[in-house]
Amino acid sequence: MKSQSLGKKKVVIVGAGFGGLTAAKKLAGDDRLEVTVLDRRNYHLFQPLLYQVATAGLSPAEIAVPIRGILSDNENTEVVLGEVDRIDVKNRTVGSGTREWKYDYLLLACGARHSYFGKDEWEENAPGLKTLEQATEIRRRILTAFELAERETDTNRQKAHQTFVIVGGGPTGVELAGAIAEISRHTFEKDFRHIDPSRTRVILIEAGTRVLAQFDESLSKRAARDLETMGVQIWTSSRVTGVSREGVQLGDESVAASTVLWAAGVLPSPTGNLLGTSLDRTGRVNVGPDLSIEGHPEIFVIGDQSAVTGENGKPLPGLAPVAMQQGRYVAKIIRAEAKTNEKSRLPFYYHDKGQMATIGRKHAVLQYGKIKFGGFFAWMAWLFVHIFYLIGFKNRIFVLWDWAWSYLTFNRGARLITQKEWRENPLSREP
Amino acid sequence: MKSQSLGKKKVVIVGAGFGGLTAAKKLAGDDRLEVTVLDRRNYHLFQPLLYQVATAGLSPAEIAVPIRGILSDNENTEVVLGEVDRIDVKNRTVGSGTREWKYDYLLLACGARHSYFGKDEWEENAPGLKTLEQATEIRRRILTAFELAERETDTNRQKAHQTFVIVGGGPTGVELAGAIAEISRHTFEKDFRHIDPSRTRVILIEAGTRVLAQFDESLSKRAARDLETMGVQIWTSSRVTGVSREGVQLGDESVAASTVLWAAGVLPSPTGNLLGTSLDRTGRVNVGPDLSIEGHPEIFVIGDQSAVTGENGKPLPGLAPVAMQQGRYVAKIIRAEAKTNEKSRLPFYYHDKGQMATIGRKHAVLQYGKIKFGGFFAWMAWLFVHIFYLIGFKNRIFVLWDWAWSYLTFNRGARLITQKEWRENPLSREP
Repeated sequence: MKSQSLGKKKVVIVGAGFGGLTAAKKLAGDDRLEVTVLDRRNYHLFQPLLYQVATAGLSPAEIAVPIRGILSDNENTEVVLGEVDRIDVKNRTVGSGTREWKYDYLLLACGARHSYFGKDEWEENAPGLKTLEQATEIRRRILTAFELAERETDTNRQKAHQTFVIVGGGPTGVELAGAIAEISRHTFEKDFRHIDPSRTRVILIEAGTRVLAQFDESLSKRAARDLETMGVQIWTSSRVTGVSREGVQLGDESVAASTVLWAAGVLPSPTGNLLGTSLDRTGRVNVGPDLSIEGHPEIFVIGDQSAVTGENGKPLPGLAPVAMQQGRYVAKIIRAEAKTNEKSRLPFYYHDKGQMATIGRKHAVLQYGKIKFGGFFAWMAWLFVHIFYLIGFKNRIFVLWDWAWSYLTFNRGARLITQKEWRENPLSREP
Repeated sequence: MKSQSLGKKKVVIVGAGFGGLTAAKKLAGDDRLEVTVLDRRNYHLFQPLLYQVATAGLSPAEIAVPIRGILSDNENTEVVLGEVDRIDVKNRTVGSGTREWKYDYLLLACGARHSYFGKDEWEENAPGLKTLEQATEIRRRILTAFELAERETDTNRQKAHQTFVIVGGGPTGVELAGAIAEISRHTFEKDFRHIDPSRTRVILIEAGTRVLAQFDESLSKRAARDLETMGVQIWTSSRVTGVSREGVQLGDESVAASTVLWAAGVLPSPTGNLLGTSLDRTGRVNVGPDLSIEGHPEIFVIGDQSAVTGENGKPLPGLAPVAMQQGRYVAKIIRAEAKTNEKSRLPFYYHDKGQMATIGRKHAVLQYGKIKFGGFFAWMAWLFVHIFYLIGFKNRIFVLWDWAWSYLTFNRGARLITQKEWRENPLSREP
């Protein structure tokens, strides 16, 4: 089964997110290349819809696709499940446990995790939303909070169970807040006997002066208004100074909440440190105009893990289109060089695809160059784009059907409390 | 929000499986009754399809429905998430943690777990299949075993990773074995580069002389033949004497296998012990012809948790139709007595609905009274019945579409390795 490798260029791709997977697909079919895709997960995750899993709208399998399945027709490609723990840039090898791979080209595309700004101890009581496990854990906490409120006889504790604090007013925070407000107002309308789910408080905390700061100011206002209509309380210019089991501290103020979710700050994957090259202030790898690191034109770093400056002088945002364009760009360079052996590279240029964020079941904001709008049509556009880019025909149909269903019925199918035994005492979060 | 309760009869149902949920639905709308449904899970699980989750064919949310959602229109019913830890039969109260409920009627329907015949230490290396968590854990192990085989360079270890042992030749064991064989022969056909998935060994171990012993002998033969055609190796009259990380021991013989699954033996829920009444040899609660326990006509025990003898003198099997008929029977008694206060009860009679088991993607066996057949039409009947009884219209559509899809493409969508970090060393199963 092992393929011959005489004279072939070996390409190792680490990470099968938007960037790495796009590169792998573009390298398919070139029999001058031998491609190895390494990932510590066996699936590609469609992160833009992760908040839907966290809020019981979609199932994990609807937004995650086995990498092997996606690349199984690429005969020049092998997929390996493993976490890279060393990179030898001199001898050009990448290692994971007992295994090692030689490379002629290395592409790092490992993405980012959440950053707690040095307060990692907050994570236990304020989980972030970057992985499927975190999404099902957040789902568990949200649903359990309502169950605890229903059982509780003490009014203060009941109120704390019905309080949800979301830290960070970026797209993820806005999406989570909108979805939780919707669940409490609509999905749970008739489900409880002792609590009124519509009295749930959803508080969105943002350190800056407005939500969705990366959007135009008019869209921030629009989003804030839409969120408030849905019952979300927005606290801007508010900085969280403490997170505990009881809730959050904001300087002199404090809010009692059983459920605190973290949607603020990202930290690039630590695999960048293995390269021994320079990183920027936030830990992203500094790369040149061709996305390779200094002194090593054979090593590329793309996506959330690399620091690239856009045309406007600002760093490129951590969006799927950026990573995908970069993956395509690097694949093109590798194919060209494998063919002609020439080394002249045009610099990477990002074609701005705009950005969008959704707010509940019929509002969104959309910005594309000079075009900016919000409301139902932005939501339709958001829906269309997300269905379109979702990998796998079957998933597209499922997600579309799921959305149509919950749009019509306000129902959310995946309301399962799994993985941890349920406890009466909310303080004992660990089993 | 609390309902009035003057003169109303209080009914407490423990467990929202097939039996408890059927009873709760039948008690709906009777305003002489106040119903409390207690379950330690927030969802009703369609157990007959659990093996599909374990083998990546379906997602958890497709076979699990929030209990609250199912019963939200029943105004006389409240749903409480909680595990019953005490029953006071004298004072007629049921307790869970700090809460307590009075009852006029109590219905225990807590089902069963797996039994390791006193060898509970086997569970770690041979998980059973009764809960969603176990199903995703089994899925994780099956998928991880193939990944480990692909990475492995030692032939013996590779072979162990490609060996799956299923202990117990009842319907669950047969279904698991068939599905794993199918995955290895079809789904994974093109996915790997270093192993040949079709060389996977699937060994089904049965202590008795035939698989599906509760079926007619001709159907056992049929099932065995179908399984063997699919590549499953059947070892009958074989008793497992040891389970370890390396595989299974069968007296003098031993098989090296990374993945061992347990589908043998059931043990009733321990809540039966809280009644202080007599249990049968296997721990099921002994009940009279009206399914109530001795001396307490107000306490009923149904489903897998109770010991009822059928017309043929044999105990009723642990099947969904039995539990559902019992739930309906008990609900009818309670409604009649709440109305007329009379206490004459007709004995419970089980209308045999037959039984079926499926073997891979187009074979099944079916037995209904004198009717017995196998093959494709049995499989169609199996499919129809399972779709029909699945709760929730949306789930029916999803599951049907999922099956149609994997029937046509041999694909299995939910091939996700989640919940535990992946490890290179298979021995370190715990994170």
